[in-house]
Amino acid sequence: MFNSFGNILRVTTYGESHGVAIGGVIDGCPAGMQVDFKAIQNELDRRKPGQSKIVTQRKEPDTVEFLSGIFEGKTTGASIGFVIKNTNQKSKDYNHNTNVYRPSHADYTYDKKYGIRDHRGGGRTSARETANWVVAGALAKQLIKHININAFTSSVGDIFINKPYQDLDFTKTEGNMVRCPDNASAGKMIEKINQIRKAGDTIGGTITCVAQNMPIGLGEPIFNKLHAELGKAMLSINAVKGFEFGSGFCGAKMQGSEHNDIFNEDGTTQSNLSGGIQGGISNGMDVYFRVAFKPVATIMQNQQTINSEGDLTEIMGKGRHDPCVVPRAVPVVEALTALVLADFWLLNKTRKI
Amino acid sequence: MFNSFGNILRVTTYGESHGVAIGGVIDGCPAGMQVDFKAIQNELDRRKPGQSKIVTQRKEPDTVEFLSGIFEGKTTGASIGFVIKNTNQKSKDYNHNTNVYRPSHADYTYDKKYGIRDHRGGGRTSARETANWVVAGALAKQLIKHININAFTSSVGDIFINKPYQDLDFTKTEGNMVRCPDNASAGKMIEKINQIRKAGDTIGGTITCVAQNMPIGLGEPIFNKLHAELGKAMLSINAVKGFEFGSGFCGAKMQGSEHNDIFNEDGTTQSNLSGGIQGGISNGMDVYFRVAFKPVATIMQNQQTINSEGDLTEIMGKGRHDPCVVPRAVPVVEALTALVLADFWLLNKTRKI
Amino acid sequence: MFNSFGNILRVTTYGESHGVAIGGVIDGCPAGMQVDFKAIQNELDRRKPGQSKIVTQRKEPDTVEFLSGIFEGKTTGASIGFVIKNTNQKSKDYNHNTNVYRPSHADYTYDKKYGIRDHRGGGRTSARETANWVVAGALAKQLIKHININAFTSSVGDIFINKPYQDLDFTKTEGNMVRCPDNASAGKMIEKINQIRKAGDTIGGTITCVAQNMPIGLGEPIFNKLHAELGKAMLSINAVKGFEFGSGFCGAKMQGSEHNDIFNEDGTTQSNLSGGIQGGISNGMDVYFRVAFKPVATIMQNQQTINSEGDLTEIMGKGRHDPCVVPRAVPVVEALTALVLADFWLLNKTRKI
Amino acid sequence: MFNSFGNILRVTTYGESHGVAIGGVIDGCPAGMQVDFKAIQNELDRRKPGQSKIVTQRKEPDTVEFLSGIFEGKTTGASIGFVIKNTNQKSKDYNHNTNVYRPSHADYTYDKKYGIRDHRGGGRTSARETANWVVAGALAKQLIKHININAFTSSVGDIFINKPYQDLDFTKTEGNMVRCPDNASAGKMIEKINQIRKAGDTIGGTITCVAQNMPIGLGEPIFNKLHAELGKAMLSINAVKGFEFGSGFCGAKMQGSEHNDIFNEDGTTQSNLSGGIQGGISNGMDVYFRVAFKPVATIMQNQQTINSEGDLTEIMGKGRHDPCVVPRAVPVVEALTALVLADFWLLNKTRKI
Repeated sequence: MFNSFGNILRVTTYGESHGVAIGGVIDGCPAGMQVDFKAIQNELDRRKPGQSKIVTQRKEPDTVEFLSGIFEGKTTGASIGFVIKNTNQKSKDYNHNTNVYRPSHADYTYDKKYGIRDHRGGGRTSARETANWVVAGALAKQLIKHININAFTSSVGDIFINKPYQDLDFTKTEGNMVRCPDNASAGKMIEKINQIRKAGDTIGGTITCVAQNMPIGLGEPIFNKLHAELGKAMLSINAVKGFEFGSGFCGAKMQGSEHNDIFNEDGTTQSNLSGGIQGGISNGMDVYFRVAFKPVATIMQNQQTINSEGDLTEIMGKGRHDPCVVPRAVPVVEALTALVLADFWLLNKTRKI
Repeated sequence: MFNSFGNILRVTTYGESHGVAIGGVIDGCPAGMQVDFKAIQNELDRRKPGQSKIVTQRKEPDTVEFLSGIFEGKTTGASIGFVIKNTNQKSKDYNHNTNVYRPSHADYTYDKKYGIRDHRGGGRTSARETANWVVAGALAKQLIKHININAFTSSVGDIFINKPYQDLDFTKTEGNMVRCPDNASAGKMIEKINQIRKAGDTIGGTITCVAQNMPIGLGEPIFNKLHAELGKAMLSINAVKGFEFGSGFCGAKMQGSEHNDIFNEDGTTQSNLSGGIQGGISNGMDVYFRVAFKPVATIMQNQQTINSEGDLTEIMGKGRHDPCVVPRAVPVVEALTALVLADFWLLNKTRKI
Repeated sequence: MFNSFGNILRVTTYGESHGVAIGGVIDGCPAGMQVDFKAIQNELDRRKPGQSKIVTQRKEPDTVEFLSGIFEGKTTGASIGFVIKNTNQKSKDYNHNTNVYRPSHADYTYDKKYGIRDHRGGGRTSARETANWVVAGALAKQLIKHININAFTSSVGDIFINKPYQDLDFTKTEGNMVRCPDNASAGKMIEKINQIRKAGDTIGGTITCVAQNMPIGLGEPIFNKLHAELGKAMLSINAVKGFEFGSGFCGAKMQGSEHNDIFNEDGTTQSNLSGGIQGGISNGMDVYFRVAFKPVATIMQNQQTINSEGDLTEIMGKGRHDPCVVPRAVPVVEALTALVLADFWLLNKTRKI
Repeated sequence: MFNSFGNILRVTTYGESHGVAIGGVIDGCPAGMQVDFKAIQNELDRRKPGQSKIVTQRKEPDTVEFLSGIFEGKTTGASIGFVIKNTNQKSKDYNHNTNVYRPSHADYTYDKKYGIRDHRGGGRTSARETANWVVAGALAKQLIKHININAFTSSVGDIFINKPYQDLDFTKTEGNMVRCPDNASAGKMIEKINQIRKAGDTIGGTITCVAQNMPIGLGEPIFNKLHAELGKAMLSINAVKGFEFGSGFCGAKMQGSEHNDIFNEDGTTQSNLSGGIQGGISNGMDVYFRVAFKPVATIMQNQQTINSEGDLTEIMGKGRHDPCVVPRAVPVVEALTALVLADFWLLNKTRKI
């Protein structure tokens, strides 16, 4: 149960960053859907390392191969197996880690929980796992293509886009390295990341995601609220520390008389502080939320740490350096959003006589 | 699947605020646990309406009755059925709502999703459901009594406790109406809520929760990360708009060199921006997180809205007014935290040979 | 997970035979279904003790009370809580059992598994639990009322109906105490049960169940085959020792050339040794299967046994005697069949674009 | 949910007989288990086609490759991905099937359910899927190696072993082509299958499985009874029509006074008609059950059938012929038994304080 996500549409994954391959099984995809393989590979390419000078320079082609469940270009209703081979498994880069717990990494917790640790680059904890999610999410996007899902980098460090998302042109997101649709902010963000990179340091940021053209009725009201599933999904991404939707933490400072979204005659609302969700169910307005990423833990600086014997020692990141993971997490956020929405969309077919 | 929470320890609930009763089934509780019924009722009493002048004055005794699974004071391993009768079902109070969609309530989304709506006080969407969670959570607390779980009101509107949680004395939380362990802040919060109440308005706030004396190893690394399950649980509570743990949204502004938690020789860390969780697994440090509540939607003021025919109309809250739900949500946050931790604690027994 | 059945339509139950009440939660029932409460109570009455002289004379009214999820006679899409109060809890009848393991009962296994045992009449192991299933199944029947589900007693001891089910008139099933639609066989069965009853003994039998007017396409092909779920459901009923569908164990003696069902032009088949299921999916022909019940373990005769200290002792059943549970299990078989079919019927709405 | 089996230990599979590969993900295997890869491959070899002259002569090496979750020979607690490449994908052999529904195959039901059909050799319905189960089951066997699981062919057509299993020597099972530990019966079975093979026909049979050295307490009492899960597992195997355990269908003819298993002082029982399970929970005695297989549908004889347009036509099996699948199903029965027992064994660690 621990490596699966979703109810009707469920993805189950496996794979370590330095094993033979990663991959998964997508279960519950309805039969008869024409699969756009190019679109799936395109999403993977958005996520892969080495895309620009501000992200990790590690090279991995990340080519997905589908093994089942698709016949003559269409889904058959059978489970869809897929695999992404690891072509860049320089385990040697990590030999210095064998016995050392990297600060704010999962080395220590894995070792204590399982009594064994795959020390090669994080093993199962590696963000490489998110490539699996992108594959599944790209397929889910095709299932709900009437919904437009757009994520983008909304802040890096203390540089924020100071505009509501309604003023942004999402077609510009892919136009710069940092995946920020506001060009002025994008420039500052890139500059900031470059400084950080040169210092061998890392920096955090936030991603905002907007789902437009939403159907009414997605989400189940008690423990599978639409925003609760979105939150769980986002909190599954490596380095995420927070999730808010609609008015979010700002809403906690407000009064009901200013926070309530007044209805128009057609059922839309004048404001949308609810973030398109009431009682856990989509109301047809835009669903939007924000995800906080901490700076990644691997820095190119010397840090004090301990080894498995409890001796103090020092560690310094080696190999490729990823100063800001936020831009590469943008397609991951979209993928998980698509998975959540597609799952609820399927489920919703069973909720009314 | 929609009204259940948890994996090994799973609670399934039912009930509308104005039906006959609410209740649920707790499945997977190990056999042989001595049940402290008084402690459970005590938790329910902390949540119930009418406790003080700053919360809703609706009176409901909220007495839980256990129907199975406990024999001679001990759990038997069988499923535990429980029921809380509704004694205050003045459906008439809600007759004016029959046809009108209250702004920022779930009336509209339920009606659209299900084609039918129980208009009596919110039906299944009522926060009364959280009484069920408190029962289950109070039992879960007894399963993991070595862990100390303390939640408290950390802000109301723009009044925040300006101290780290380490400087607070949690034994003071229950000492005031607003459940804030910092007496100076508590006074200001109560004053604020009184103003809001007199204006017929409502106000949001935040709850911070701290789990201390944590075992190492709770949480499953991919889709059932400890913080992802906590986040999902918190986002299931009515009116919640956001969740952050450890450094949270602040962490998104930081650099790796300042964010990393440096180890001590004993495996503890000098700082704890990770919030006691690395790679989704508890590391033995305190787990802490913050939950944002919007102001509740029912205000004692006139608001424009629509009815199910799409005609513009007006609505004004009737009956009891709840100016700030945050204090009453404190035991709910603790209950869900206990459920998540107890579930992972049981699951962890199966993860190592 | 241990007290739940079903995927989309899921029932979760609780309750011991001698506790306060039994009951459950039905989750996933679509909104907008008009509930026929009388039909549900009617099914419960078919199952209840004391209906005729050949079954246990214990009196229990078995009245179901619905607590939620139904508003103005229609399902709302919310979870449906229900309770059946125990009105006949003479725990004293069982005091002699406190320390003694009844042969072929679950006393010993419960005690060893849980380290604790509710000795009052079997506790959670009592067949009284099946009343919960009948409630849920009766609701499920209303969801798939286009399908006709008919179960009947097909043998008692070595008395079998020697006719194919196609030659039986199912409207006669309720016409006799033993629920056998073949009057000649029914007479012999009743006579046999009377002999057994007088001897203080018990006897086994089989139930055959036929689902007619089946839609094509129910069942999921790998681990949720229609017959695998039916088999699991039937094997959950107390005293069941075997399940076969279509040609069953006889099919294991046959050759392919005689066993294959040859198609007619309209997709129906000339024979139906497949039992209406191919590859785990219904093909539109009648689904039929047979369930074997052992004689119940409680007999009114002296038997050697042991107590929890491992001392040899003797035991003899007290109170009401149930010489043959098969007739009362007929509505239980139908109820579980309805639950399985309704669950797959809902799921099937999600399996094709 | 449709391609997964198990609760704590869960296997999820994919793959068609004539696709690129089959495979799966094993989730929930505890960390720290030394993996015996040779034993796993050995089980696969027992299942593979072409082992002897009485089974299909199709050649497939069936080599499993593990992709994750195992590090330096030990399980890490991470999900275990595995793949078995298809090396013998002569889809052309099946081109004559494109439009024709083979009698008693799943062609018709798949086409109607999904609106699309992978006509290459059965696609997902192929018994090739059971190779995945054998991999997972072989791993599960290593988790519960204290339990001895032995399955064997107990009948072919009307040739039965006329001995109780206690009189058999299981070390002889692998000594003949038909996997029958009774040499005299084995000879007759092989002769029978040879006749059937020459006639281009197929024949059914039964497998008996015995689990010895059972721990007490496996199984969950209501909907996850040990025998209900075993039954569901067995009914998932292609061509299975029935399942019985302990006294099975014979028990339905018996009286309680002869069927009850009288206790010895040590808690064992003098007889074991219960099949080692009381109330769904293992009692420490041998668990044994019997599984009925129909003759496989593909015969080398001309049969009338229809095509997807509903026209009458004829079909005759081509390629390799499998006159009796029972011998090759023996390791599949053992594998699924191991999966069920290992899952309950893990679960049982959480059931007592």
